[in-house]
Amino acid sequence: MQIARSVGEMRDARRQVQGSIGFVPTMGYLHAGHRSLIERAREECRTVVVSIFVNPLQFGPEEDYGRYPRDVPRDLALCEQAGVDVVFVPEVQDIYPMGAGTVLEVRGLQDRWEGASRLGHFQGVATVVAKLLSVVQPTRAYFGEKDYQQLQIVRRLAADLLLDLEIVGCPTIREPDGLAVSSRNVYLSAEARGRAMVLFRALTAAQDEVDAGEHSAAAVRATMRKTIESVQGVDLDYAEVVDPTTLEPLDTIDREARAIVAAGVDDVRLIDNTRLTPVGA
Amino acid sequence: MQIARSVGEMRDARRQVQGSIGFVPTMGYLHAGHRSLIERAREECRTVVVSIFVNPLQFGPEEDYGRYPRDVPRDLALCEQAGVDVVFVPEVQDIYPMGAGTVLEVRGLQDRWEGASRLGHFQGVATVVAKLLSVVQPTRAYFGEKDYQQLQIVRRLAADLLLDLEIVGCPTIREPDGLAVSSRNVYLSAEARGRAMVLFRALTAAQDEVDAGEHSAAAVRATMRKTIESVQGVDLDYAEVVDPTTLEPLDTIDREARAIVAAGVDDVRLIDNTRLTPVGA
Repeated sequence: MQIARSVGEMRDARRQVQGSIGFVPTMGYLHAGHRSLIERAREECRTVVVSIFVNPLQFGPEEDYGRYPRDVPRDLALCEQAGVDVVFVPEVQDIYPMGAGTVLEVRGLQDRWEGASRLGHFQGVATVVAKLLSVVQPTRAYFGEKDYQQLQIVRRLAADLLLDLEIVGCPTIREPDGLAVSSRNVYLSAEARGRAMVLFRALTAAQDEVDAGEHSAAAVRATMRKTIESVQGVDLDYAEVVDPTTLEPLDTIDREARAIVAAGVDDVRLIDNTRLTPVGA
Repeated sequence: MQIARSVGEMRDARRQVQGSIGFVPTMGYLHAGHRSLIERAREECRTVVVSIFVNPLQFGPEEDYGRYPRDVPRDLALCEQAGVDVVFVPEVQDIYPMGAGTVLEVRGLQDRWEGASRLGHFQGVATVVAKLLSVVQPTRAYFGEKDYQQLQIVRRLAADLLLDLEIVGCPTIREPDGLAVSSRNVYLSAEARGRAMVLFRALTAAQDEVDAGEHSAAAVRATMRKTIESVQGVDLDYAEVVDPTTLEPLDTIDREARAIVAAGVDDVRLIDNTRLTPVGA
């Protein structure tokens, strides 16, 4: 396994490989979710590249950039074990050279839901993804469905910038009780961890309702809200039924839709989502 | 000479070439300025690609997108004659696919000078340049110094997006009386054409003053303004002495600087610029 510690080293590594390249961009502190992306890339591509970069631009001034969990030696061991070919571990000044001023906006998608609560977050995500794709030039790039809005933004970005690659969305990996695996779960106390599973319960309730024939988005939304608000110490941000591509709220679930939820548990922001397929669709 | 009329055709053409690729992005209606860029690319690169695309996103709502001069058959003949290998002539919906929302911002550089008078202009330029570079993937891309702020923005963009290519700035081509060659010169009446050369006169006066030992940017600025304001029917927008990279105004010309001017002549917006090198630098 090769470790590229600068843009120059990554470019050199890139020039030496031929055939399909699968790319898994991460902020490190790898968990079962990342592992599933790497395995998928390993199955589908000749060369697998993983990047580890905690991107300062996607954190708000009040957010957890400084305390975001990091453990590069452990990440490298996990990559090696998973059969990764190249790990790209750039420094901040590699990705944001002196005087850098270029920022990508994905208008229409970036300002709602997570973007409304985390100002500038998706500009930061879009900007770093464009840079990483530019250096790695993969055939396919793998993103988890857990960050569903991010996935849609990256799809839009890749189409808009006319990038010649495929964005692959991969299913959310869950703990046995349903909690979506996330690097931020380490922030949860044992007690908060118990409450956190209400997000998955709300999504499951939404799915059950749609499976039973409900077509009203308002009804499904109300069910999700009631479920989340029934647990004390869980601070609901949103629970919505949206179009799976544009992320606009739906009135009627008459085609595939996405249920999305966000809530704070002891100041830890958690998000989750699931597909809703109406009966007969 | 190959003509690629879609992103797919351009990608196919791109895959078939090896070695260095020189790229000259244009809005068509080619003139001696473009010709000099093409010649430079022809000298330096194995394959030369020219794009012809009038980019709607860089025109303001009050601007001349609709009436911008176009003559693709003539442009193609000129490219053929100049030894161009591939001409990329995409449609608007190729470059801006349905639902496109991605816009590039080059903060710090985009909002002053031309950006202040043409809101959104440089976002449009940066966005289309990123798309075209993504499809063509050149070794070198050629831009004229006449659009000096654009050149600096493209340099910044290429560095920030970690693109593995060289941006080459080429000298402004001028008419015998000094007027910078521009597609918009066709809008000028014979009488306005006579007045338009005052921009070059102002730049020459600035250079003469600096050559004579002047180090005060305020003095040089005053000379340029006086020169331009002395001609009736020429509406000065700005005449400034700026840092050649950041485009911030300078107080003292103690290193290489750039003089930049913009003025309206009969509602035709004209810009020009020149290098200022202080005595002893």
